[in-house]
Amino acid sequence: MGEFTADKSHPRYESLLKRHNLEIAASRGMLADSALIAHGRGEAFDYLLGEKTSENAFLATKNALAHLSAAKRPIITINGNTAALAGKELMQIANYLNCPVEINIFYRTDDRISAMLKHLEDIKQEHGITTTILGESPDAKIPGLEGPRAKCCHEGIFSSDVILVPLEDGDRCEALVNMGKTVIVVDLNPLSRSAKMASITIVDEISRVADNMLKIIENEDNLEIDIGFINNHNLQQSLNIIASNYS
Amino acid sequence: MGEFTADKSHPRYESLLKRHNLEIAASRGMLADSALIAHGRGEAFDYLLGEKTSENAFLATKNALAHLSAAKRPIITINGNTAALAGKELMQIANYLNCPVEINIFYRTDDRISAMLKHLEDIKQEHGITTTILGESPDAKIPGLEGPRAKCCHEGIFSSDVILVPLEDGDRCEALVNMGKTVIVVDLNPLSRSAKMASITIVDEISRVADNMLKIIENEDNLEIDIGFINNHNLQQSLNIIASNYS
Repeated sequence: MGEFTADKSHPRYESLLKRHNLEIAASRGMLADSALIAHGRGEAFDYLLGEKTSENAFLATKNALAHLSAAKRPIITINGNTAALAGKELMQIANYLNCPVEINIFYRTDDRISAMLKHLEDIKQEHGITTTILGESPDAKIPGLEGPRAKCCHEGIFSSDVILVPLEDGDRCEALVNMGKTVIVVDLNPLSRSAKMASITIVDEISRVADNMLKIIENEDNLEIDIGFINNHNLQQSLNIIASNYS
Repeated sequence: MGEFTADKSHPRYESLLKRHNLEIAASRGMLADSALIAHGRGEAFDYLLGEKTSENAFLATKNALAHLSAAKRPIITINGNTAALAGKELMQIANYLNCPVEINIFYRTDDRISAMLKHLEDIKQEHGITTTILGESPDAKIPGLEGPRAKCCHEGIFSSDVILVPLEDGDRCEALVNMGKTVIVVDLNPLSRSAKMASITIVDEISRVADNMLKIIENEDNLEIDIGFINNHNLQQSLNIIASNYS
């Protein structure tokens, strides 16, 4: 894997850097075949949204962080793409929240789990993070799901009350909602099943979301849950942005 | 690479089959790293377009075929993704038009050219196609471009008057238009630089476009060029479909 050499002044710098990070993750065995295709879909939706955080996405991000802060057992789950794009930032957020992270991948194989675990342990070491990393030894199942994607950790996903699941599969999102959890999804497609199913959907790109959360943590003393938040309205505002860019 | 086992009744059958074909192509060394990401972007736009050929896309396809049929030196160019998704069909169209195809890849390496050549030669043998395959030994350059992506064949792309370049890069599309050619692009994003730059943009998925062209060839005796065709209107109609799906 070559070094990343693009100049910061390149108009596609951010986009190229993300691809580079994904290529590194792929070469380390962290990604399923479908991960790069999924990233491409995300790129297209991000393009439609103007490649920036919308006002409603920022409010959803703040509200999500408020729910995580107020939770009894918050958890942040991390899959291959999110580890590659925002692994460090998500670990820092978990560190602030004093909660574990759980590796949570759809196409679970031992090799992929090991590769991700190593990647996250390296980040932990390098940045002095104390967060527990779960997911290596799942000992519980998400009710309503079959096979490897049902697996989770009892002290992690299973027992959580508020859960951040970036880039989640629709079925699993539904199963988590059915468990009574507050489910926070990050999804660039406001019409995806996950986006419509979640308690709070942040329609934004995961590395921008993680950066925004870290900024909010730095700047705000007390985070308040927005009791008037209606996710459907939030989604409609993102739809409006796409429609207005396309008419 | 495992066999493709999804059932035709699966709601995502077409989508899964395309991914499978791309994974095979990737394992044969036909694709650059960015090819799967590009496919994902295409998937997202196709989703926004309802995953079917719109009326305006079908008219653009007919008009494109009429231009290719009336050309003195038509040519069809093929890159990694198009070879994987519609290689056979594009070769059959070239066979009908009695024109060559030219391998035309953005990240040109000898290995990738060899892998694609083998793939297309296999198709040629298997389906009794007599079309010449160019691109292995480029001997000309597209004016205005630098490096490997400028390379082309004098008896192919360089001397063509009407050129089908599915999934083309914006810069190269512009350079081909500047050479005075009628440039036909297949692009699912109606706002891409290529889409806006081309003489005729077919806003549709490449395997549907190729199938449609073969059906038109089977059914129609004489193809007439649409002299009233305005590409901007065509693009606007595809934009309207996306906007109406999103408001």
